[in-house]
Amino acid sequence: MDEVKIIELKESILEDNDKDAALLREELKSAGTCLVNLMSGPGSGKTTTLLALSKYLNDTLKWGVMEADIDSAVDAVTLQKAGIPSIQLHTGGMCHLDADMTRQGIRSFEIENPDLIFLENVGNLVCPAEFDTGAAVNMTILSVPEGDDKPAKYPLMYQTCSLLVVNKIDALPVFDFDKERLERDARKLNPDIKIFYISAKTGEGIEDLASYLIEKVREWK
Amino acid sequence: MDEVKIIELKESILEDNDKDAALLREELKSAGTCLVNLMSGPGSGKTTTLLALSKYLNDTLKWGVMEADIDSAVDAVTLQKAGIPSIQLHTGGMCHLDADMTRQGIRSFEIENPDLIFLENVGNLVCPAEFDTGAAVNMTILSVPEGDDKPAKYPLMYQTCSLLVVNKIDALPVFDFDKERLERDARKLNPDIKIFYISAKTGEGIEDLASYLIEKVREWK
Repeated sequence: MDEVKIIELKESILEDNDKDAALLREELKSAGTCLVNLMSGPGSGKTTTLLALSKYLNDTLKWGVMEADIDSAVDAVTLQKAGIPSIQLHTGGMCHLDADMTRQGIRSFEIENPDLIFLENVGNLVCPAEFDTGAAVNMTILSVPEGDDKPAKYPLMYQTCSLLVVNKIDALPVFDFDKERLERDARKLNPDIKIFYISAKTGEGIEDLASYLIEKVREWK
Repeated sequence: MDEVKIIELKESILEDNDKDAALLREELKSAGTCLVNLMSGPGSGKTTTLLALSKYLNDTLKWGVMEADIDSAVDAVTLQKAGIPSIQLHTGGMCHLDADMTRQGIRSFEIENPDLIFLENVGNLVCPAEFDTGAAVNMTILSVPEGDDKPAKYPLMYQTCSLLVVNKIDALPVFDFDKERLERDARKLNPDIKIFYISAKTGEGIEDLASYLIEKVREWK
């Protein structure tokens, strides 16, 4: 089943992650590669969102996904089966990725000159927000069943991200979810945050999100 | 709105958390207090489950809740309003609680000789699993919308917990969720794990879970 490449990441020995992340960002800028650091809690639909986006990204961009998990390769296998170039990164128990770990992943990636790489970070709203990975865009997904109170509880995640995607809007009738409260709390932390509402399952809102990401890649080049 | 006591926890300076946790567990055993460390990803329904349990616990036990979050006091306020003695612990950005932080919380708690204290840990499937809090019972909640693949991705959490509660089963018709896969993966990591299926929203399964917890408290005394 595991036809994907699995990279066992080594813990970084670098002390200054911010400096290293700035360097990686410059390297990626020179190479014309836009790195998107995709974060969320567990089970918010990061992989399903990438699958849904592929329909719109495939014709326009050379892109791929680095899946980071503590264990298993289920997500990379899912994407690979759908024809999306993917590798699985294992963090060796670590709860996040830093810039050096991200670089290890990128070096193991076999697409030549990609326009866009998604780093699907470990499902965790706390630790990944603390470490700059060198990404051009920090993107977070919040799914409707998780509730509208997440910005209040995990403020750093929403301060760090420029792009907030609210997923599973097809489940809005089943859950109490106050969009106004969410937007108010998120914008209090980050006035410029861009918010999209999608259902990766039904496809609603995916085309707009894809257009936004394609535009971000063009700006980066 | 914040009528609850908020404790700003200090980072522990103790080096041997396992030893400190064993000591705290002994102290709690002597005091006849059963500490339940309640863990889950963000938005799985920890607070709602405690609210639902209160109906069955209130007549039988003297109990309360310590809510741990990075920021906000929304959960402790919710519980307090429902008449459940609660305090809010702020972790100062930390992604988990250790035994010393748990002890700081317990010392600030104003119930005399409680039978049961829930520590509602930071919503995170990674880091809390790594730190023994001194609890008698480690309990984890997985909600249906998060998906059945969580044991495969976050193995330590399921190895660490003796009690797995699957919440939001009222949403089963809306999501693909394979109970057999979940149970197989969870039992592979932890053959003795006890599994309950509940809906904190509709009340389904709550009475059985409450009976199990009351029994655990009796065994502990």
